[in-house]
This record gives sequence, structure tokens and C-alpha cells, in this order.
Amino acid sequence: MRASNDLLLTTLETLLCEKKYGVLRELLIIQNPADIAALFEEAPAHSLPLLFRLLPKALAAETFVEMEPDLQELLIRGFSDTELKAVLDELYLDDAAALVDEMPAILVKRILRNADPHTRKMINQILQYPEDSAGSIMTIEYVRLRPHMTVEESILHIRRTGVDKETIYTCYVTDNNRKLIGIISAKTLLLSDDDALVEDLMETNPIFVHTTEDKERVAQLFDKYDFLSLPVVDEEQRLVGIVTVDDAIDVLQEAYTEDIERMAAIVPSDRPYLKTSAFELYKARIPWLMILMVSATFTGMIITSFESALAAQVVLTAFIPMLMDTGGNCGSQSSTTVIRGLSLGELAFSDLPRVLGKEFRVSLLCGLTLSAVNFLKLLFFDRVGITIAAVVSLTLICTVFCAKLVGCALPILSERAGFDPAVMSSPFITTIVDAISLTIYFSIATFLLHL
Amino acid sequence: MRASNDLLLTTLETLLCEKKYGVLRELLIIQNPADIAALFEEAPAHSLPLLFRLLPKALAAETFVEMEPDLQELLIRGFSDTELKAVLDELYLDDAAALVDEMPAILVKRILRNADPHTRKMINQILQYPEDSAGSIMTIEYVRLRPHMTVEESILHIRRTGVDKETIYTCYVTDNNRKLIGIISAKTLLLSDDDALVEDLMETNPIFVHTTEDKERVAQLFDKYDFLSLPVVDEEQRLVGIVTVDDAIDVLQEAYTEDIERMAAIVPSDRPYLKTSAFELYKARIPWLMILMVSATFTGMIITSFESALAAQVVLTAFIPMLMDTGGNCGSQSSTTVIRGLSLGELAFSDLPRVLGKEFRVSLLCGLTLSAVNFLKLLFFDRVGITIAAVVSLTLICTVFCAKLVGCALPILSERAGFDPAVMSSPFITTIVDAISLTIYFSIATFLLHL
Repeated sequence: MRASNDLLLTTLETLLCEKKYGVLRELLIIQNPADIAALFEEAPAHSLPLLFRLLPKALAAETFVEMEPDLQELLIRGFSDTELKAVLDELYLDDAAALVDEMPAILVKRILRNADPHTRKMINQILQYPEDSAGSIMTIEYVRLRPHMTVEESILHIRRTGVDKETIYTCYVTDNNRKLIGIISAKTLLLSDDDALVEDLMETNPIFVHTTEDKERVAQLFDKYDFLSLPVVDEEQRLVGIVTVDDAIDVLQEAYTEDIERMAAIVPSDRPYLKTSAFELYKARIPWLMILMVSATFTGMIITSFESALAAQVVLTAFIPMLMDTGGNCGSQSSTTVIRGLSLGELAFSDLPRVLGKEFRVSLLCGLTLSAVNFLKLLFFDRVGITIAAVVSLTLICTVFCAKLVGCALPILSERAGFDPAVMSSPFITTIVDAISLTIYFSIATFLLHL
Repeated sequence: MRASNDLLLTTLETLLCEKKYGVLRELLIIQNPADIAALFEEAPAHSLPLLFRLLPKALAAETFVEMEPDLQELLIRGFSDTELKAVLDELYLDDAAALVDEMPAILVKRILRNADPHTRKMINQILQYPEDSAGSIMTIEYVRLRPHMTVEESILHIRRTGVDKETIYTCYVTDNNRKLIGIISAKTLLLSDDDALVEDLMETNPIFVHTTEDKERVAQLFDKYDFLSLPVVDEEQRLVGIVTVDDAIDVLQEAYTEDIERMAAIVPSDRPYLKTSAFELYKARIPWLMILMVSATFTGMIITSFESALAAQVVLTAFIPMLMDTGGNCGSQSSTTVIRGLSLGELAFSDLPRVLGKEFRVSLLCGLTLSAVNFLKLLFFDRVGITIAAVVSLTLICTVFCAKLVGCALPILSERAGFDPAVMSSPFITTIVDAISLTIYFSIATFLLHL
């Protein structure tokens, strides 16, 4: 692989100091845009405009796309109108639209003023699609072929117009009304006879999505079908754009981060950890902590209502943490498995009975094992009486049982009700299971110990 | 989109009953391989060989690759040697290697016997790479060009040899010793003059990985650099294969599933939930449940050691669940954020001081807010005495503080020590934080309440 970034950074700073811009430029242009962007993030901010101007036009634009929004903003503020226009001209439309979406209003005006009228119109159109829709991540720069074209004409068409297209590897065949009627890969074109017709070679039953389709579902289609790009159509099935695999991977990564943040009771954000201030992290974390803390009041009330029983048998308190934790762990195992199944599309609402049946069996197996081990441990290690051991072990079976059923059912029901199932994960389930397990615990104790 | 699978399945079963194989074939060949595989999963097992034989050779192979291992096994057992050979001939080498890896030994022998000698040799070679390495997911069917070839020669070469290649869109340029010296995209070739030379157009500083590189890191490179494929080299930097973006997406999805399973204290498996038996789920879940249950003994022991204090003030018991849950939630927020940062490559061991500093500030903010709200709630809602309120609220601040620091530090330290940081997640952290918070609780209580 490459020299480590740290070394490169030092070299870059030395060259900057010594004003060896020629060498600096040679050194930069052999790097990958993503690496240059990472270097620029670390470089001194005041030298950024200078460094950026060293890059050739196309590389500059590609690097710009890879940068974090705060750095993009810094650069744009320093650009002359001519420089801004040059960068905008090199951007693909989906990247330009993403940029406009992220910049503060004052810069957006300047960006749109400097974009050419066609680009401006297209950026505005892309920005009109709902935030999480296929429309919002698509690009409109794709290769369009007609059914009656020959392979030779098609390849010529690609060679003539391909330079501005985000991908030339999948071409889209439309009729006179721009309706999508087929797709054909560059591979098929290259491997076919020059005078074969596109309509005879194309795949006529292409998978497509509507502009309003959820972008996460679009990304899952890439996983399922191994696409390099996917056509996006409007309500009249006219082709309006394509989503490419690199954007699909970004959506998957983002969706996954969001999922596990929700599952850990964090309000999702899309900024990297080290770029997020402590106050922002606080704002993302405090709402659920507060809600869950206040919910724990109910658990406290359950304990208070059994206070006299507890006072008579203080030893019961010692097993509260074990029962709560085991219940929480069982519940989060089930909920995590089900949430992942839902987001991979392996599970749906109609599977609820099968899931419940399976979790029922798993909970019996887990409950019996844990409770047997626990019973022996209580008798021989903790040396409590057989009745106490029975109370704790019976509670354990019931807790595991309830935890697994609540844990698997809530995410499925929550998705059915239109909420994100990831919210129904460990912290939330734990709070519910706590209340259930303590109620069971004290009820069994009151009964068996005659409290 | 397509007709729903259920409807298609019914149609398929009716056509099977009525032996209308011609129509059935027409209906199948317009489907996507992944969809046909999904249909076959649902179709009656005894009709599977018949259905499979209806597919044209290439489509049959593509469908075969998309099937679950148990169905593949069923089919192979029913194949004649000729049929097996026909399917094997159509498979890409990486898929054939994956198949051999998954089948039982007896079938592996049959598969290798029916593969042609070259394929057999290559399969064995791929299978020699460690399970999670780049080598194990690469394919060796790529387009290789030489530096002195012209664009026209290169395109001709692609057209002549491309049919067996997994991708023709990125071509690899090697010297006489097969050393990788550059890459060039089909787009560049198509958009350049016929008589330009490959060596003048190619990117000369390509990013590559070694065969032993961890496959998750390889997949993250696809995310970072938006590649369609990535070259894999041996120790002498000779090109031995490529990884394609579809395999990279599979690795990402698998890695996510593994991560969140570990984070929920489940032993990872790669089978879909509905295909996993209750006993297998039990085996994946019971080890950590058992370990964590037994660890909770320490928490119980802490409570037991403060039993006399508790007996004097039973009301303290009511706040144990709230303190434990809040501690657990705070800890898992931090650990989840850090684990995700580590797997995205945003965080490394050297960031530990920055992370600790940030979590320190966040924990102060969260601790103060929660504890203020809790103090007011205790005084005005629960109507406990001011000393008890002070004990609980002080404990809360300390618990949040410890939970956040333990939560962020353990995953980083665990990765440093060579373990998967995902194991250091909520369940594990919760168990540690429980013990810490209860010790703090009773210590403060003993001191302030003079117990």
C-alpha cells in the first residue's frame, strides 16, 4: 500500500514551507481523490486554497466531492466565481445536488448562480425528492440507447457522449416516450456482433424502482441482485435517472450506523465521532437516557409495592441484578436477531407466528439450562435455602420466556405500525422486561415464602 | 416491480401439476437468477431437479450460485456427472471455490472429479487462503493487458476473451513478471483514440491489497474509493486475482450482521434466522447468557455485603433498577459509538486520549442533566427525604461518568489486544457497570445516611 498518511502529511507541509509547488503538485496528482481529501482534512486550513489550486481541474472536482462539508464550505468561501464555476462544471449532478443540500443558504445562492441554467434546473429537481427516496440519491447522467440502434452505433454513441456519464457500463433503452423498455450492459455490447440490434440483445424485463422508493430498500436490491446501477422511473414509468453501486454502498453504511445507534438508544447523526462536539453527542444521547430513566420509575414502584416482603427477606435483593441482566440479555438477543432479519428483508410481519414459535422453543431451552445451573449455584455456592433457590430459578425460567417473546414480537409489531424496529431494541426491551421479571419474582416469592 | 412471489409460486405449482413445461420455462427465463433461486427455495423439493433442468445452461449456473447451500447440496446429489460438469463449467472460479468450501466432503470429491484440471487446481489454490482473507473472496478471471498494447488492440482483446471474465470494466496492466503496474477502465479505453497506448492512459499508482489482507478491510476500501473491483497481489506484488464490488457488499453485510450479533452477546452464524433451528439458535445464545449470568454473582455479592445497610433502609432497593439501567444505557451508547467508529476506520488506538476527553465532557453533561431531573423527581414525585434524594442523584452522576469511560475505553483496548471490539458491547459493559454503580451507591449511602 501507500506510504502512511502521517509521513505524506509531513512531506506536504515541508514542501509547502519551502514553496516547492511543482513537486507538491506531482506528489498530489498520483494520489487517489479520497486520499487527497483525507490529507487536506489534516493540512493547515490556511494553505487549503493554495493546495486545492495545485490540482488539475478534474482531480480537483473529484477531491472536492470526497471532502467533509465543513472543508467544502471553507473552500467555497475562498473561491472566486470563476473558480466555483469551474468546480461545479466538473461535478456529477448527484454530487452537486448533495453539495447544495449541505451548504448554508448564503452559499447555496452563490452556487446556484454560478451553475449553468441546465445544471441549476436539474439540481433543483433532484432536491425536490423526499430526503430518503431513490430520487434524492440518483444521478441523471446515464447512457440512453434506442431499441433500433446496432451494436456499432451504440458503441459509437457511448464513445461520443460517455465522458459526462457517471457510468457507461449499464445502458438504458427507452422508447419514444422515454419509457424504460430494456437494459443492456457494455459487456454485452462489446461481446456482440457489430450489426446486431440493441432490441435483440437487451434484457427486456429490467428491475427498476420509483423515485419515491425508500433508498435503503434500493440499496438492499444492489445486495440481492449484484447490480452496478439501477434505473429510477417516475409514475408513468419514464426513465428519470439511475442509482450507482457506490451510492448504494454509502446508503448501506449509513443505514447500518443509524440502526446500531438507534439500537443503543442514540438519536442518529451522520457525522464522524471525532468531528462531533461533546455537546452534539450529548444532544443525541440525552433524550433516550431521560425517557428510559423515567420509565425505570415503574420498576421502582413495583419494588416499593413489595417493600414489606423484601424487608422480611432482604436476601432476595441480592438476585435482582442477575435476574434483570439475564432478562435484558435474553430480550436483546431476540430483538437484535429480529431487527437484523427485518432490515435484510428476511423477515416480515407474516412471519410473526413462526418467529414466536421458534423463540418459544429457544426460550425453553435457554431458560431450563440457565435455571438448572443457577439452582445448583444457589444451593452449593451461595448456600441459600432450597425455597429461595426455587423462587429465583422459577423466576429465571419465566423471565427468559417473557424476555424472548417480548424481544422478538416488539420489533415486528413496531415495523408493522410504521416505526423503525431498531428503536425496539435492548434499552427499551430491557426496561419492559425489568418490570415483568420483578413482578414475577415478587409474586413467586410472596407465594412460596408465604410473605 | 414484478408480480409478487406468492402469486408466481402458485402459478409455477399449477404449471408443474399440469405438466406445462414449455410455459414454465418461458416464465422462468424472464426472471432474475436471484428471484428464481428464491422461488426454488419455496417450491416443493421433489420438483426441484425438474425445474432446474428447464433453465438454459448459463441461467441455471447463475441461479445455482444464488441458492442456499442446503438446496445446492440437494441438487448436486441428484445430478448426473454430465449435469454436474455442465454447471461447474459455467461457474466463475470464486463461486466454484465457495461451493466446494460449503459442501460435505463426499460431494466435494465428486465436484473436484468433475471439474476440469485447470479449474480444480485454481479452486484448490483459492481454498488455501485463510478464511477471512482477500484471497478467499477473489476471482482469478480478470482482463489482463500489456503496457505496449494500443486501445484498439485492448478492446479487441476484451471482445475476444471477455466472455469468461467476471468483470471487463477494470482491466489490469502487468509487466513480463505478472507484476501489477497499472489499471485502466473500459471507460477510458472506449473514450480514447484507437492508437493511444495503454501505458500512456493507465493509472500507474493503483491501490491493491495482498492475498492475506482481512476481507472486511478490503470491503471498507470499496466504500472509501468507490471501486468496481480491486486487484489482489502476492508477496512479490504479482497480480493473482481481483475482488469485485458485489462480493465486497456481501462481506459488508456479513460483517454488520456479525458485529451486531456479537454486540447482543450472540455467537455469530451466517444462516438466515428462519433457516436456523431452535437448537442452533440456543447454541449461539447460551454461552454468553451463561457467562453473563455467572458474572452477575459479583453484583449479588456486593449487595449481600451491604445487606445490613439495605435492611435499615429498604427504600434504597427501589432505585437499584433505575441506576443499573441508566448505567447500562450510558455505557452501551459509548461502546456502540466507539465500536462503529473502529469498524469504519474512523478511530484507532492512538485516538484513545481524544475519545476519553470527549466522553468525559459528554458524561458530565449527561450526568448533571439526569441527576438534576432525578433529584427533583425524587423530592416532588417519590417524596423521599432530601438525603436519600442526594444519595441517589450523586450515585447517578458517578455511574454515568464511569459507564461512559468504561464504555468507550474497553472496545479500543480490546481491539488493541487483538480481540473483536464488538464483544465489549452493551451486555458485557452492563455487567461491569452494574458492579461499579452498586458499589458507589452503597458507599455513598453508608456515608451520607450513617448506616
